[in-house]
Amino acid sequence: MAVYTEVPDDELAAFLADYELGDLLSCKGIAEGVENSNFLLHVTAGHYILTLYEKRTAESDLPFFLGLMEHLSAGGLVCPLPVRNRAGAALGRLAGRPAAMVTFLEGMSVRRPDAKHCGQVGEALARMHLAGAGFALARPNALSVDGWARLFAQAQARADSVQPGLAAALRAELAHVQAHWPQDLPRGIIHADLFPDNVFFLGGVLSGLIDFYFACEDALAYDLAICLNAWCFEGDSSFNVTKGMAMLAGYGRVRPLEAREIEALPLLARGAALRFLLTRLVDWLDTPVGALVKKKDPLEYAKKLRFHQQATSAVDYGLMR
Amino acid sequence: MAVYTEVPDDELAAFLADYELGDLLSCKGIAEGVENSNFLLHVTAGHYILTLYEKRTAESDLPFFLGLMEHLSAGGLVCPLPVRNRAGAALGRLAGRPAAMVTFLEGMSVRRPDAKHCGQVGEALARMHLAGAGFALARPNALSVDGWARLFAQAQARADSVQPGLAAALRAELAHVQAHWPQDLPRGIIHADLFPDNVFFLGGVLSGLIDFYFACEDALAYDLAICLNAWCFEGDSSFNVTKGMAMLAGYGRVRPLEAREIEALPLLARGAALRFLLTRLVDWLDTPVGALVKKKDPLEYAKKLRFHQQATSAVDYGLMR
Repeated sequence: MAVYTEVPDDELAAFLADYELGDLLSCKGIAEGVENSNFLLHVTAGHYILTLYEKRTAESDLPFFLGLMEHLSAGGLVCPLPVRNRAGAALGRLAGRPAAMVTFLEGMSVRRPDAKHCGQVGEALARMHLAGAGFALARPNALSVDGWARLFAQAQARADSVQPGLAAALRAELAHVQAHWPQDLPRGIIHADLFPDNVFFLGGVLSGLIDFYFACEDALAYDLAICLNAWCFEGDSSFNVTKGMAMLAGYGRVRPLEAREIEALPLLARGAALRFLLTRLVDWLDTPVGALVKKKDPLEYAKKLRFHQQATSAVDYGLMR
Repeated sequence: MAVYTEVPDDELAAFLADYELGDLLSCKGIAEGVENSNFLLHVTAGHYILTLYEKRTAESDLPFFLGLMEHLSAGGLVCPLPVRNRAGAALGRLAGRPAAMVTFLEGMSVRRPDAKHCGQVGEALARMHLAGAGFALARPNALSVDGWARLFAQAQARADSVQPGLAAALRAELAHVQAHWPQDLPRGIIHADLFPDNVFFLGGVLSGLIDFYFACEDALAYDLAICLNAWCFEGDSSFNVTKGMAMLAGYGRVRPLEAREIEALPLLARGAALRFLLTRLVDWLDTPVGALVKKKDPLEYAKKLRFHQQATSAVDYGLMR
């Protein structure tokens, strides 16, 4: 949950005067996203999400994120569409922060995804990868292999306070992934954070994707590996191969995987698990007790990582040959 | 801000199946209220607020609060109207908590109320007092004089840690108010917490009142004294008599004050300031560092109290003779 900044009614009214959206009818701070302040806005023209970007989102990245949502929407993906003001700008300032408005998407995230959900997520991810082609702006993935080494350096001295032996296990895993990370896979724009929180469904049908604030350029199949981690494990950290099969088949219906992507899948899944393990670990060690942000358990990803370390091929994830 | 409980999509869908509101389209936890968890719900039938009552709201009081909103709505006041389910009940259970849905009110609370806002609040408060007549359920005010003595007993040992001399000042004020508290004023249902957060405006026009979870039976003029405290002081704790005049005139247009109410006004204002000073002081002393709830400064009310102690009649609040 996150509303870090309060927006006074008078400042909001002044901000909205720059848009052709009519009068302000209501504005509610919502508990969505952990990086920024979000508000559900009702104006004459309809419902919108107003986001105030807090310091964890680099202002220099905002044209990439907002431009990407426009590009993906134009490509037929259902995602929030930034609203441009009278001057044609998608980015403004409110309450001393960069601010943008995007269209409101109906739908609910699912707590317990089943194989049908996973299949639709696979399809939507592939659609996003295709729709991302031709986007003019670039953003390297700061949370790829080099970034993991930096995160490990930050966390290693205190990692064993979370679980004895964790530092050594992470060091070995990082070395393995660094040594084998594939460099020749098809690349493009990836979502990089397509967890169940960021996918909406209506009546069991996927209705849209949100939260593109980790999007960047990277191997497309790495994005799929993130989704396998995020969607296809059970609460006890066992891998549900039926869900994996549905997700891989869904993805492949829209964008068939190349042989080198299939071959790399177990390693990509290890990298994805390591990435979330490391960011959660750093947050876990650095978040003060009682802070607003709910800390996520890094060890969930230590367990997932063990599954990936034992996987020998994409068949272990449910790929049908 | 407050979302204490998360509502899983499947439990919410099951809860909504008991209502004739159609399909669930979206549900956002909102940062409103400090006592309960609130969600803005979009269903086929429209927008509603779903409230899950947390432990600070006594479950035995809920029929009073929900019944009161129905009674006031029926009396023409614009306030949230509880939605009854197929079984005719306004109160249900969700995620292990008592839960209710009410209609969504458009509007924004104002950060900097002016005299026009204050005049409308006075009118609306008087309308609420008239509309409350005939409500069948009773709820004594737990935060009246006897309650203040209990709060003082809780806080007195540590009060001087907030401001040296505060304990003695509170003891003297409590004794004065206890000795002079009027017992013969017109009584009825009061809102008891009609702060700017709880009043919505649209285009400068009052559009509704919310948050009846402190409502109770007490002297009607005491409710007005709370509003004078909540609306008519400036940021530097000076009393703005133009706002006071507008509020008193607005109230009087709808429900003329009786002579004994006018006479009691300075004392009622002292009592109201003491009440918020004491509850804020107890919260200040008891809230752990880093808790989700933003603590409100009790000393704001110590300053307001000093104004009331020097007031000699309702004229000091702007009452026109």
